[in-house]
Amino acid sequence: MSAPTVEPTTAPAAAPADTAPAPDPRLREGAFGNATALACRECGHQVALGPFYACPECFGPLEVAYDFPAVTREQIEAGPRNIWRYKALLPVPDDIEQSPNTEPGFTRLLEARNLAAELGLDKLWVKDDSTNPTNSFKDRVVACALSAARELDAKVFACPSTGNLANAVAAAGARAGMKTVVFIPSNLEKPKQVNSAVYTDKLVAVDGNYDDVNKLASEIAGEEEGWAFVNVNVRPFYAEGSKTLGYEIAEQLGWRLPDQVVIPVASGSQLTKVRKAFQELVALGLVEDKPVRIFGAQATGCSPVSTAYKAGVDAIRPVKPDTIAKSLAIGNPADGIYVLDICRETGGAVEDISDDEVREGILLLARTEGIFTETAGGTTVGVLKKLVETGQLDTSLETVVINTGMGLKTLDAVADRVGPAATIAPSYSAFVASGIV
Amino acid sequence: MSAPTVEPTTAPAAAPADTAPAPDPRLREGAFGNATALACRECGHQVALGPFYACPECFGPLEVAYDFPAVTREQIEAGPRNIWRYKALLPVPDDIEQSPNTEPGFTRLLEARNLAAELGLDKLWVKDDSTNPTNSFKDRVVACALSAARELDAKVFACPSTGNLANAVAAAGARAGMKTVVFIPSNLEKPKQVNSAVYTDKLVAVDGNYDDVNKLASEIAGEEEGWAFVNVNVRPFYAEGSKTLGYEIAEQLGWRLPDQVVIPVASGSQLTKVRKAFQELVALGLVEDKPVRIFGAQATGCSPVSTAYKAGVDAIRPVKPDTIAKSLAIGNPADGIYVLDICRETGGAVEDISDDEVREGILLLARTEGIFTETAGGTTVGVLKKLVETGQLDTSLETVVINTGMGLKTLDAVADRVGPAATIAPSYSAFVASGIV
Repeated sequence: MSAPTVEPTTAPAAAPADTAPAPDPRLREGAFGNATALACRECGHQVALGPFYACPECFGPLEVAYDFPAVTREQIEAGPRNIWRYKALLPVPDDIEQSPNTEPGFTRLLEARNLAAELGLDKLWVKDDSTNPTNSFKDRVVACALSAARELDAKVFACPSTGNLANAVAAAGARAGMKTVVFIPSNLEKPKQVNSAVYTDKLVAVDGNYDDVNKLASEIAGEEEGWAFVNVNVRPFYAEGSKTLGYEIAEQLGWRLPDQVVIPVASGSQLTKVRKAFQELVALGLVEDKPVRIFGAQATGCSPVSTAYKAGVDAIRPVKPDTIAKSLAIGNPADGIYVLDICRETGGAVEDISDDEVREGILLLARTEGIFTETAGGTTVGVLKKLVETGQLDTSLETVVINTGMGLKTLDAVADRVGPAATIAPSYSAFVASGIV
Repeated sequence: MSAPTVEPTTAPAAAPADTAPAPDPRLREGAFGNATALACRECGHQVALGPFYACPECFGPLEVAYDFPAVTREQIEAGPRNIWRYKALLPVPDDIEQSPNTEPGFTRLLEARNLAAELGLDKLWVKDDSTNPTNSFKDRVVACALSAARELDAKVFACPSTGNLANAVAAAGARAGMKTVVFIPSNLEKPKQVNSAVYTDKLVAVDGNYDDVNKLASEIAGEEEGWAFVNVNVRPFYAEGSKTLGYEIAEQLGWRLPDQVVIPVASGSQLTKVRKAFQELVALGLVEDKPVRIFGAQATGCSPVSTAYKAGVDAIRPVKPDTIAKSLAIGNPADGIYVLDICRETGGAVEDISDDEVREGILLLARTEGIFTETAGGTTVGVLKKLVETGQLDTSLETVVINTGMGLKTLDAVADRVGPAATIAPSYSAFVASGIV
């Protein structure tokens, strides 16, 4: 029996909304672990697990639904030191560790005393995803997408991307030994091309902007059989990977939830999944329930969610991005409305800052905590600062800020702002005369 | 009582060689954990723990000596997920986790099935230190140097460097809140300057080559009080950090030693310390004793140790480096003679490859395992390949290759070798016509 190859169809309108649909008989048992179906986030309609991302009833986004067994802290702690320690809570098979993957996750949670003192916070932590295998949180979601691609017997592993996602997909595909195709805009800077091309000889440059590349990817997904585009037709599985950020924060805090979390918002998926992770941990009895205020961070040059939040409206008006925070530059964020709901419901907020403040955020984190983040992290740290200054964040509450990526990928953002304090002749007297210390 | 500030003196010729010297009374108790003294690697003479690096009797290199208590696997496994899980085996205090540091280590040990198949090896692992906080193994040694600097009440944390070490020192110093000064050659490429300057406003450019910068650092260490140069006057503590690579390999293999290890050779310190780590684990009863063949890797453009190995001589003749593997470009390696001893004694070898083979090594690792390494890692992987091809490495034995750094730092090495397979118009028909898949 061979597994189904990924097909880019809409989901079959099969089962009644209150019954889990029968699994595709071509899938091996437990292919998606404890996941039971894909459920529409809007109308609740459920369809069988497969390469589907839109509800056949209402076209709402599909999300993985589960029937979790009892899971203990001890079971998790005995697992590997990567995201697979949470495999029981992800749509992956129980033998996931046996299949070559990049083994991402379980990154540092650092107490940030210097940054806390600088901002006037009582207790602050940085969850640092810049130390993932390809230096961004994308390794988490791609690892889950890779598992889905494998179980669905995909022939090609693929994505459209301009940066972090391309790196993560190219690296994971190489390690898995799968044919991997990455589509990028042809005008992408050379260093970013190299950082993906090093892993795959199937990098495709497309003459157009990112929207054009994205559209082409959807078209290929619709025409070709057996392609798993991580952020298109296996997106529901992919998105679940972000939950591991929430699990890790709770476990690394000693199995408890923080009071406040600040999270960058691109599509908004990560923020919604961290929330989902916290709720699952509570439901499973792994942490005590408590209020957690959730804050979203955007760059002003692409701040459709922050704009809606401040205007007090529910609808997100798409924008044309113009910011140095390119990994957050999604003008029409798919999960924007859910971010609004969550931030309002939990007593959080969505805030945005200028590109200059993004640059200052990068330097602030580097100089206080020795973490060199990319523009997305600069945005998150800069927004944290602004939330404190505007009184939106409670400085007496324990706060976690998520750093999603690494500064070497966006060097240009700060290259003109830092440099040698002095240039001296190679002698002790020249050093003394410089007065540098 | 205040701790002594770091002073760049030669070690006091105090105790007889067979007695541990009394600790400096100004140090707090347990400042260096289970370390008892600094012992000369040549003559065995011991001096008290302090900012000393040369034997007062024979000018040989000083190394940390210990009186280890009983240490169990369970104690180590219950520790933090970074190098401090091995704190009982390092010259650091028992409360080291309380002092802000970058929390490096416990990086991935990946089974490399694709690379093994490509090279014809039965069992191969990659120890991947590119996911350390500043993306190289230097975070390990710098964390130990930082602890020494703190215990010695240093006023300034410093180093001369052109790359990875500068990044690690600048980041660790920032997080520790110490005044941190990093000296670099003034002609260093801008991206490498930025990658250190982002952390500190005390980057000093020196008009000269790396040797000039190094000399200036030694001069400052000799003239100024309270400076801790990680790779000069606190070097014995610094160097111990490399042992954690060996501990982790053994623990991650399930508390056993591999049969063969391939390690890059710059100063040679890392290779000697990995060996020391294996010996300590055996002595402590934490792993079973067994033969481990140790191999050193150099780039031909800076291969003084490999040259001596092949010539069958004991003396290392210094060279003027000319290779793209700049983080390995030490023409007069301090630990070269010990590397020769170890590789010969264990049945290993020292081998070198051309810069073109270094570039091929980078691509080989990226395409087979999804790990983007810098030129040093390209050297190590390329040498692994050559060792197999020349029959110096036993392909039936379990082998570990160490990746010490990250490809984003040396992008230029491969920038001209990789790129898009095709550039197409943004349409499905153009994609099909390209024949790329």
